Amino acid sequence: MKVCGIAFCLLIAGPAGNAADLNLMPWPSAAIVQDGFLTVDHALRIEVTGGDDRVRRAVARFLKNLSTETGVPYDRRFDGTPDGATLSIRCTGVGRRVQAVDEDESYHLSVSGTGVELTAANPLGILHGLETLLQLVEPGPHGWRIPYVRIDDAPRFAWRGMMIDVSRHFMPLQAIERNVDGMAEVKLNVLHLHLSDDEGFRVESRRCPKLTGAASGGLFYTQSQIRELIAYARNRGIRVVPEFDVPGHAVSWIVAYPRLASGTAPARLVQSQHDDLRPPLNPTQDSTYKLLETAFGEMAKLFPDAYFHIGGDEVDGKYWDHDPEIQRWMRSHGIKDNHALQTYFTRRVEKIVHKDGKIMEGWDEILDSDLPKQSLIQSWRGADSLASAAQSGYKTILSAGYYLDLMHSASYHYAVDPLAGKSAALSPAEKANILGGEAAQWTEYVTPENLDNRIWPRMGAIAERLWSAEGVTDVDSMYRRLSVLSRSLAWRGLEHETGSRMMLGRIEGDDLPAPLLETLAMAVEPVKEYDREQTQVYDVTAPLNRLVDSVPPESDYSRSINALAARAAHDASVRLELRRQFSQWRDNDARLEPYLAASHLRLGLAPLSQDLSKLGVLGLAALDAIEAGKPISVDSRNEQLALVQATAAHHAELLLAVTPSVRVLIEAEPGTQ
Amino acid sequence: MKVCGIAFCLLIAGPAGNAADLNLMPWPSAAIVQDGFLTVDHALRIEVTGGDDRVRRAVARFLKNLSTETGVPYDRRFDGTPDGATLSIRCTGVGRRVQAVDEDESYHLSVSGTGVELTAANPLGILHGLETLLQLVEPGPHGWRIPYVRIDDAPRFAWRGMMIDVSRHFMPLQAIERNVDGMAEVKLNVLHLHLSDDEGFRVESRRCPKLTGAASGGLFYTQSQIRELIAYARNRGIRVVPEFDVPGHAVSWIVAYPRLASGTAPARLVQSQHDDLRPPLNPTQDSTYKLLETAFGEMAKLFPDAYFHIGGDEVDGKYWDHDPEIQRWMRSHGIKDNHALQTYFTRRVEKIVHKDGKIMEGWDEILDSDLPKQSLIQSWRGADSLASAAQSGYKTILSAGYYLDLMHSASYHYAVDPLAGKSAALSPAEKANILGGEAAQWTEYVTPENLDNRIWPRMGAIAERLWSAEGVTDVDSMYRRLSVLSRSLAWRGLEHETGSRMMLGRIEGDDLPAPLLETLAMAVEPVKEYDREQTQVYDVTAPLNRLVDSVPPESDYSRSINALAARAAHDASVRLELRRQFSQWRDNDARLEPYLAASHLRLGLAPLSQDLSKLGVLGLAALDAIEAGKPISVDSRNEQLALVQATAAHHAELLLAVTPSVRVLIEAEPGTQ
Repeated sequence: MKVCGIAFCLLIAGPAGNAADLNLMPWPSAAIVQDGFLTVDHALRIEVTGGDDRVRRAVARFLKNLSTETGVPYDRRFDGTPDGATLSIRCTGVGRRVQAVDEDESYHLSVSGTGVELTAANPLGILHGLETLLQLVEPGPHGWRIPYVRIDDAPRFAWRGMMIDVSRHFMPLQAIERNVDGMAEVKLNVLHLHLSDDEGFRVESRRCPKLTGAASGGLFYTQSQIRELIAYARNRGIRVVPEFDVPGHAVSWIVAYPRLASGTAPARLVQSQHDDLRPPLNPTQDSTYKLLETAFGEMAKLFPDAYFHIGGDEVDGKYWDHDPEIQRWMRSHGIKDNHALQTYFTRRVEKIVHKDGKIMEGWDEILDSDLPKQSLIQSWRGADSLASAAQSGYKTILSAGYYLDLMHSASYHYAVDPLAGKSAALSPAEKANILGGEAAQWTEYVTPENLDNRIWPRMGAIAERLWSAEGVTDVDSMYRRLSVLSRSLAWRGLEHETGSRMMLGRIEGDDLPAPLLETLAMAVEPVKEYDREQTQVYDVTAPLNRLVDSVPPESDYSRSINALAARAAHDASVRLELRRQFSQWRDNDARLEPYLAASHLRLGLAPLSQDLSKLGVLGLAALDAIEAGKPISVDSRNEQLALVQATAAHHAELLLAVTPSVRVLIEAEPGTQ
Repeated sequence: MKVCGIAFCLLIAGPAGNAADLNLMPWPSAAIVQDGFLTVDHALRIEVTGGDDRVRRAVARFLKNLSTETGVPYDRRFDGTPDGATLSIRCTGVGRRVQAVDEDESYHLSVSGTGVELTAANPLGILHGLETLLQLVEPGPHGWRIPYVRIDDAPRFAWRGMMIDVSRHFMPLQAIERNVDGMAEVKLNVLHLHLSDDEGFRVESRRCPKLTGAASGGLFYTQSQIRELIAYARNRGIRVVPEFDVPGHAVSWIVAYPRLASGTAPARLVQSQHDDLRPPLNPTQDSTYKLLETAFGEMAKLFPDAYFHIGGDEVDGKYWDHDPEIQRWMRSHGIKDNHALQTYFTRRVEKIVHKDGKIMEGWDEILDSDLPKQSLIQSWRGADSLASAAQSGYKTILSAGYYLDLMHSASYHYAVDPLAGKSAALSPAEKANILGGEAAQWTEYVTPENLDNRIWPRMGAIAERLWSAEGVTDVDSMYRRLSVLSRSLAWRGLEHETGSRMMLGRIEGDDLPAPLLETLAMAVEPVKEYDREQTQVYDVTAPLNRLVDSVPPESDYSRSINALAARAAHDASVRLELRRQFSQWRDNDARLEPYLAASHLRLGLAPLSQDLSKLGVLGLAALDAIEAGKPISVDSRNEQLALVQATAAHHAELLLAVTPSVRVLIEAEPGTQ
């Protein structure tokens, strides 16, 4: 019997067969593995007691997912036999009518020769436990099976969310629902929808019909779709928090109701980076609040969650500065600057939201000393603002470091802990104000076609950070389990892998022979942070069908090549494989180049392909030098490093992610004194 | 200007840029390509005149498919500009309320600098023309474009069908609908559903509710789903012909209504090859016809098509022989044998079907001299029975040679022509009785998961045989265009590629490193004809999740390796690539073998993997011998060939499809006198 608890040490050091080998993500609070396996066959009997209808639906879903993953029609034939093992599910309580942030999500799962026992005090625990159980099922030599195990599990943070911006690029309901399925697998519990921005208002409003009629471009969720989505999410243990961004990012409100503008109202929705008339709402007129009261009132009823997100970020004060009416009003009301004006606005909006029975949530910028203490601050500007919000007594969640659209690696996000940095020094009571975190997927450069590849599987690493113990930080383990998760998500219908492949196929077209494009594609990643908008104007009508849109944000191939190269100086066994890869890079460009001009989808790839070829040549030379053991001069090394550095340039909004592999080899070459 | 007509010769010999390079499948009757391309951008204006609502739906679908394939949101932004080119669609007539077999499906398509003109006399022509147009869209250096072209096109046969057996394995509506989408792309026009068999009755019956309640196992289409499917198919130019198989293959009828049995009625639906109590309906009692009258009457109303398929195949006479009541009745009615008894049954059923306003269709076995001439014979037993039906004055369609479940290659099916063999000698009037053909997908070993990979893209080759001119027979061209079609079908939602990959991934699990399984998987094919049931008992409850279920029926990789090897004796340039492949085979087994026992999904693969390794060794030796030019003895060659022959054994219901490559090399080795 092997124990694996919070320390997670066994995951690194443990022998085969222990808990550390379980393909669970997020990692549970405690797992004990025993010798033996329960066979998953049709003799298994299912018994469910307690809970509410979510439990029964979850069991049906479990059987459906189990059938899909195994290819065995368990969902049709799980009749059980009297002598069979039992899958016993006991829920000792019912959940809240509207899922709340403070509900008990813990569960106990035990698998032994007599069957499976899953118990929880709340249906949410059962839902999570069934996801764990499904991740435990594996193919054995004689059939599908589950290792004997005992798992006691509960989340570290109560708020584990993901935000999707459906304003800049609208995402059909189906795309959102399959992402909810993915969220459920990794035990996330909040879907935050960014429903309005300068580009469009995305929910049907009956009380303010121009929001949909004039400000959606025809792309919006009907109220019945929203209700379907909320039920869909609730059945999977996920709350839906709506965001309607005010007073900035509010051009859609203004296109529908131009009188709400500060200064001149733009005539149409924002379509591109170049559309720079983006006034905020006018906070000085009662009519603004009257409309918000109507719209928010309607939306507050439609979305049952206790929280209501009003945005509040990035208000551009110049429109207030330049509007004489607003300036006059500010003087007459003793409001000294724009910050104070936004504070005034936020306080009035908070009253509206409060009257609707909701807790107001907003981005960092709404924080102000007078803000009612029950408000929730979503911190996007950094860990410091998170800590200071918590210290000021506000409930808060972390999003800085979890922006998926910035194209960082899973390990980057994995290292971001809501209780690290300044927060680590907070008192226990202050720390308790940090409810958790939320990843954010802004969609300037994302369409329904590549939404999934922008989110998954990286999101699993963030989900683990928010669910698992603080000490669960082994990056190799994370990546190993993330790759298992990736396949499991594909069975659940997520299109991160298939979508990426289809998009690459579109660029290959009918003429480009495999694997020329793939060789390049595997070695690149989209540029990071906000670099893309430096070279490609964001325009909601532009096609997003090039290589940068097709490849995942993180190149698994590059990570493994870079890791291999880091070992090559001391481990001769990896050099042959590196030579094979470098030769392929070196030779690829000459074969790929003749095809590049034929299709506009391949525009801009030529220098990237040339650079990969150069890296191949440099990598082979570095391996030769290492193996020859002949020292090189400082100048010669620097010259080589400069050549490598030259391949770090961005082309077609992409960068070569394998560059470090060659750099590390050159640095490992023996040097002269 | 280059002309490409029926002769198709240019496809083989023509220079680049001519009609032969068009990625069209099925190939049109006549295509003329001119220099130049029409840019597909948002300046394009769409004008539609005439036709019925199918035309407008088809245009919307065209834009949606165009958007999906290109990644450009044409479906949202095709506003057109006054000076833009025009996509002008003119339909000079309307179609029948219920699509009929004799409607005009021809169209004319012209693409030039001023735009696209598509004209047809019937909406069906417009539908086909839009599919052609979509296949013409290609990525150019500066954007998406369509070559200037003039196409005049019409089908060779009026009946171009595909049958899916939804009785043995039920296929959800969604799986059928995506296959209808695939059918529409290749201009097929009949979906034949095999709706009842020994394993289940798959349509909701309200008038004979036990057919659904007791004989479907809960797996059936509701009447509303059937209506949805029929509308879905009609909008895509496809008729839906229902088949309810009687008097054999009728256990589902009997489980619902045991009194219909000849002899003892089985208590439950057939589940496995071993369930051998499968009596036909009792044709000697009026109650049988009374029930058929009720059920067929209901189904004839539900399915509006003019044809109604009553099966009639493979009646097992022994049940009639052993039923004393039946024997007595036959004697008293002067019916001398079982053939005459089935004839009696068929004639009574024909009257029922006729009274419902339908034309009766049945398999070969219903053919009898007294059968009303308007009946349609579906020939599954061979080209001879097709010819004799046509000669006897019956309308007939060919299915022999088009059975997709027998796992033959696309080229095998491509070579089957309804007017070849005995039919070639028929008179023009007799030939006119041959309406076309129908592929058949029986589903003993097919689930919704691999249905698509069992059908596509091979079905494209059959579709071309039935649509295109007799002389369109170039196999290399067919395969080239089939591979383009395959990708296009994937954009349309067909899961032949993704499903196969997912299933292989399931077998790889979390332990098996790439590309070990893939190397084996690429080189194998499922066993052919009815060989599978020799080693794996057919059982509808058995999982179909092994390698045989995952790989496509035809291995593209093997075809190309075999073709390469055939050139190797005279073309030294291909030998290096062959060596690379043979080395990979040789080395793969040692790396794969250690993983095989760990998962039951890999059972039986070991000998196959060993054989592939042996072939690699033999192939390398043969290349050595060819390159050395040293003659080998007859004995030595025979010895080598015997070793190759030994790798032709079946394992795990699979065979190595690359075996010919090594055989041809050994045969090419220089010999001694």
